[in-house]
Amino acid sequence: MKKLKLGMVGGGKGAFIGGVHRIAARIDGKWDLVAGALSSNPERAAASAVELGIAPERSYDSFEVMAQQEAAREDGIDAVAIVTPNHMHAGPTIAFLNAGINVICDKPLAATQEDAEAIKVAVDTSKAKFILTHNYTGYPLIRQAREMIARGELGKIRVVQAEYAQDWLTEDTQNKQADWRTDPNMSGAGAIGDIGTHAFNLLSFVSGLGTEALCADLHCFVDGRKVDDNAHILLRLEGGAKGMIWASQVAVGCENSLTLRIYGDKGSIEWNQENPNQMSFTRFGAATQILTRGGSHLGDENDRWTRIPPGHPEGYLEGFANLYSDAADLISGSSDGLLLPGIDAAMNGMWFIAACQASSKNDASWVHNKSN
Amino acid sequence: MKKLKLGMVGGGKGAFIGGVHRIAARIDGKWDLVAGALSSNPERAAASAVELGIAPERSYDSFEVMAQQEAAREDGIDAVAIVTPNHMHAGPTIAFLNAGINVICDKPLAATQEDAEAIKVAVDTSKAKFILTHNYTGYPLIRQAREMIARGELGKIRVVQAEYAQDWLTEDTQNKQADWRTDPNMSGAGAIGDIGTHAFNLLSFVSGLGTEALCADLHCFVDGRKVDDNAHILLRLEGGAKGMIWASQVAVGCENSLTLRIYGDKGSIEWNQENPNQMSFTRFGAATQILTRGGSHLGDENDRWTRIPPGHPEGYLEGFANLYSDAADLISGSSDGLLLPGIDAAMNGMWFIAACQASSKNDASWVHNKSN
Amino acid sequence: MKKLKLGMVGGGKGAFIGGVHRIAARIDGKWDLVAGALSSNPERAAASAVELGIAPERSYDSFEVMAQQEAAREDGIDAVAIVTPNHMHAGPTIAFLNAGINVICDKPLAATQEDAEAIKVAVDTSKAKFILTHNYTGYPLIRQAREMIARGELGKIRVVQAEYAQDWLTEDTQNKQADWRTDPNMSGAGAIGDIGTHAFNLLSFVSGLGTEALCADLHCFVDGRKVDDNAHILLRLEGGAKGMIWASQVAVGCENSLTLRIYGDKGSIEWNQENPNQMSFTRFGAATQILTRGGSHLGDENDRWTRIPPGHPEGYLEGFANLYSDAADLISGSSDGLLLPGIDAAMNGMWFIAACQASSKNDASWVHNKSN
Amino acid sequence: MKKLKLGMVGGGKGAFIGGVHRIAARIDGKWDLVAGALSSNPERAAASAVELGIAPERSYDSFEVMAQQEAAREDGIDAVAIVTPNHMHAGPTIAFLNAGINVICDKPLAATQEDAEAIKVAVDTSKAKFILTHNYTGYPLIRQAREMIARGELGKIRVVQAEYAQDWLTEDTQNKQADWRTDPNMSGAGAIGDIGTHAFNLLSFVSGLGTEALCADLHCFVDGRKVDDNAHILLRLEGGAKGMIWASQVAVGCENSLTLRIYGDKGSIEWNQENPNQMSFTRFGAATQILTRGGSHLGDENDRWTRIPPGHPEGYLEGFANLYSDAADLISGSSDGLLLPGIDAAMNGMWFIAACQASSKNDASWVHNKSN
Repeated sequence: MKKLKLGMVGGGKGAFIGGVHRIAARIDGKWDLVAGALSSNPERAAASAVELGIAPERSYDSFEVMAQQEAAREDGIDAVAIVTPNHMHAGPTIAFLNAGINVICDKPLAATQEDAEAIKVAVDTSKAKFILTHNYTGYPLIRQAREMIARGELGKIRVVQAEYAQDWLTEDTQNKQADWRTDPNMSGAGAIGDIGTHAFNLLSFVSGLGTEALCADLHCFVDGRKVDDNAHILLRLEGGAKGMIWASQVAVGCENSLTLRIYGDKGSIEWNQENPNQMSFTRFGAATQILTRGGSHLGDENDRWTRIPPGHPEGYLEGFANLYSDAADLISGSSDGLLLPGIDAAMNGMWFIAACQASSKNDASWVHNKSN
Repeated sequence: MKKLKLGMVGGGKGAFIGGVHRIAARIDGKWDLVAGALSSNPERAAASAVELGIAPERSYDSFEVMAQQEAAREDGIDAVAIVTPNHMHAGPTIAFLNAGINVICDKPLAATQEDAEAIKVAVDTSKAKFILTHNYTGYPLIRQAREMIARGELGKIRVVQAEYAQDWLTEDTQNKQADWRTDPNMSGAGAIGDIGTHAFNLLSFVSGLGTEALCADLHCFVDGRKVDDNAHILLRLEGGAKGMIWASQVAVGCENSLTLRIYGDKGSIEWNQENPNQMSFTRFGAATQILTRGGSHLGDENDRWTRIPPGHPEGYLEGFANLYSDAADLISGSSDGLLLPGIDAAMNGMWFIAACQASSKNDASWVHNKSN
Repeated sequence: MKKLKLGMVGGGKGAFIGGVHRIAARIDGKWDLVAGALSSNPERAAASAVELGIAPERSYDSFEVMAQQEAAREDGIDAVAIVTPNHMHAGPTIAFLNAGINVICDKPLAATQEDAEAIKVAVDTSKAKFILTHNYTGYPLIRQAREMIARGELGKIRVVQAEYAQDWLTEDTQNKQADWRTDPNMSGAGAIGDIGTHAFNLLSFVSGLGTEALCADLHCFVDGRKVDDNAHILLRLEGGAKGMIWASQVAVGCENSLTLRIYGDKGSIEWNQENPNQMSFTRFGAATQILTRGGSHLGDENDRWTRIPPGHPEGYLEGFANLYSDAADLISGSSDGLLLPGIDAAMNGMWFIAACQASSKNDASWVHNKSN
Repeated sequence: MKKLKLGMVGGGKGAFIGGVHRIAARIDGKWDLVAGALSSNPERAAASAVELGIAPERSYDSFEVMAQQEAAREDGIDAVAIVTPNHMHAGPTIAFLNAGINVICDKPLAATQEDAEAIKVAVDTSKAKFILTHNYTGYPLIRQAREMIARGELGKIRVVQAEYAQDWLTEDTQNKQADWRTDPNMSGAGAIGDIGTHAFNLLSFVSGLGTEALCADLHCFVDGRKVDDNAHILLRLEGGAKGMIWASQVAVGCENSLTLRIYGDKGSIEWNQENPNQMSFTRFGAATQILTRGGSHLGDENDRWTRIPPGHPEGYLEGFANLYSDAADLISGSSDGLLLPGIDAAMNGMWFIAACQASSKNDASWVHNKSN
């Protein structure tokens, strides 16, 4: 198998999510990182490139130049990973799409609706692929849950409870990660953008249901912070299902507690990202079952997304790697990539952010989703 | 120690909660059941009395007669337990209060606001005590949590998440318990009355915070059912805290999953009724601790509400028994009964039911609590 | 239903297990405590009797007198609970059996084999019943597990892992409970007697298998202590099954961690006393199921030993109460009491203690069970 | 950073552990796989090499040739991973060591003591490094536990309980993995070699204590199987500590349940490989704490072995990758590799296997460790 060539925009020294993307790209051996515009600071860009084994001539100071030159090379990159802060997604994403290069972009799509719309135009007019790394969709048991629901094993869905709780912004922390995430000009939103969109995407992905309306009570508990750090949201989904999302970055004791519970009229599932190798499944009237990633009780098909036997835990990085693996297969033509979040999921996330903000400004009144 | 004498209205053969009250009253040996109007059916009342060892002359066909005669006896009952369906609370409660007999009433207070107001008048004008059995407040770790919050160990409270999920009404079940609980004339409300009031009471009891406003999205998922079986509720609490309640009786896989999570700016607690002997406690920045009922790490004071050493689990019945034990101490004058839910908690619960129903009818708009 | 009359030997002020027996006897309302020789100290005996509502004329200074007089009364006790330290079991047990009064005795049977043999003679020659309170056999899911194994749901049993770990004797604690339990003249053994016999009884009760041989490595970690505080034991059971018991009172962090795991060639169960309302059950190749006490998935039969619905946790006291309830039914003739531990289980426990001590003295060599 | 060059012996198509080693080597980007003798079948070797991107001229039919030629190349491999069945460890390990090439060998060291001794001679006489992949030592919380014990946070160690339970050999399964592991000529031992050595290594690594003696009761439950599939082992450790190991491959419901519990006179830890991001830690008298991988409560030092923040679970592959990362640092001279299992741990594992087999043949009598 020939490896694909990956470029990266952002992710230089001191960054967080860029390193995660790189590990995710390495795990299954389908990608080589060969080019980058790793920082807007030229010296940091160059030093980061050396550290990552990127040849100097493929370390760029600007993403525009990188898009042009890589598109022109015979051995140019097959895809670029965009791992900059939210307000810096649109520029490189559009540049690479316009240059015909596939884009793997971190979430949420953008810091503003305008940026998002511009990206959507670029996606719609480019032949290149666009993938948004809602990485939690890569967990094998999440994909299992989606299939079980699609097969009707839970019956008609009634209630969806999603939570994403962290505590790292409990106080007025100052560091590189906190700074841009709490600057509305860079992030576009607080907890609802950074983690709420993950929860919303996950419940949509697994339930298969669109959201018809939501109401949201956003709040900021830390004095002086300019974005929401806690969000309470009610949802009305297609088919009459009801839902709730709680997203918080001030929930003391919660590290990265993303949980999803879905109740139908025949069964239910419950999953928690912090122990992602198990999922509870209950058929009404029967004992709750503990499904395990790769477990023999799931049959062979669950093995598609796992590397090692049940009981040998896979984690966040392997789930993320499933997106990079799927992306490689999609780009190389060996898969149709139907499970990969694309521009529709991305725009849905932008609607979610805007709807939460609009609802909250209007005393948590309902905001309807016209696209539904 | 002289045992107190207990009477009971309701709780004849085939009833559920009456039997629970009787065990709770027996556990600590402070009560003897000596009188009853156990059923509106005279034959069932008599047969039930025989089974329970109640003397025939103290088995009554009517609660009115019972209230009069017990009040007149020198060895009359010290308190009566009202364990009838909700629409039958007001009659006996008022009769016994007016007769000067202490009342221990099951929750919620009544099926209608009118009944509730009438009870309140009776409580206010009687010298007898009134206790509402929000039994979950009797769990030792719940009382521990309340004290920790009162002492400031969690700092200023920011977020309160309460859930009460069951699945026994997932289908259109027909039985004695389901029938009256889903008949609005008898229950006054569905999930919000039967279990939502417990969740609301518990979060108020533990947090010490009043609720300023709520919005609620009530729904009935089972065709033909006339009351809500699922409720999604947002709360705004005193001091700026935010909250959420989810109450459902159609949550497949949930038996009696009452959970409470409270987050302050310094710490948090998490507790689940199905494993009530443990509670998580996290100080911001420190490792989560597992507090245990009666655990030596809690010091001696937690022993006030426990009977056996840590690791020897107490359960629902012992928590319930703490209310009967406290009630005995209050009535016999050896305690001030400050932890016992009384008429204020009862009226608060009635406000909760009415506010949820009003909000939901008005598309989940906010309903404010004038008493706050 | 007429209540039975209970007497008690031991259990005066300051004692522990006597109070547990009393609550257990009260829970189901089948017993009234009417007589006692509650302490060898006459003043404490009298004061304790007053506190417990025992009439002065039925508060005895000596168990011998109590046995004679209660046997002679028309309204004499139906059974006596023996809740003294181990070395004080034989005297009263034999006296009451000889007087024709049923005995409910705490475990282990005795501090010495001689005492045990003497009790066995008394049991064999008396028409009165003898029950040993291996209370953990009263947990509903333990009885469920026993039935599942008897029905063959686990297939042929291969491996049994039992543990009973506590930490209250981690240091050289001095108090009433610790003092007699660590005095070999009063207890006869340390951890193996106090808790090891529970673990051994439980695995025998649930698996239905006798033990053919064991080897044991007993140890005392606390300087100056005269009995074992930690025991590692290997077992060979009937039919070729293998087992392990670990009993420790110096296992920091363990409150009362009694766990039982049984593996057959078709399935397995796992249960932990600290959360006794759940039991894992796995059929080979299928997902693990979480069985719950009273769960609808267990069918009606599990309700025999529960009082309240699933999700409403019962605990240690209710499990203990099942023994008192069964004892009442046995004595009143409404049940055959087949689940109650009797003299055979008691003698088996004495063999276990003696075999562990003999094996350990002989460098953990195997000791065979001649009765098997 | 310049990547190191890795070769591999074994691990062709259809193999299991070879793929795990390759992912582990890729995760941190410190290794490139450039050479291999991937199968004893030349066609499979070649095809596997193509699939893995190994140049044809560096795909060898024999490990002897590979060792010679790679040692001779200027760009020869920095290390070789030996991932063959146990009986095929000694040949390539010795060949590469003698050629001066560092060896990373899967466990256990060998199928026979003779092979093990021969490897030891080669290690002792070679300048090349030797690493045995007891991969569970790579889990961050395991290393944390080791440091806590070394710092005295648990006090003097008293009891060590280790278990490694699986169920994949419950029946007489026939497949590539089962076949060689149950063939004594290829594996040298059953459960004690395949998983028991992991448990033994882990308890030694974390506790820091040597084993003075053990007794073992090995058994094979599946008819016709020629190696043990269940082992019950008692241990006596340095300093008077006592231990137990249970290793089983017929424990229905256990996927890869490796657990370690260590009790000292001041504290204890408990860890389970299936949820490796959490570890319980109890100081005597205090509440149990839940330590988390990378948790801020651990201070910065725990970050040495983690890649992503707490709550983002790492798993088996990341733990394994820590060994490859450490190996790269050791070989490149940037670390002393003190945490890496080497020939001493390997020989200790061989003693464990031999001692278990000798003890079990002699009715589970004690076997002493002369090296202690």
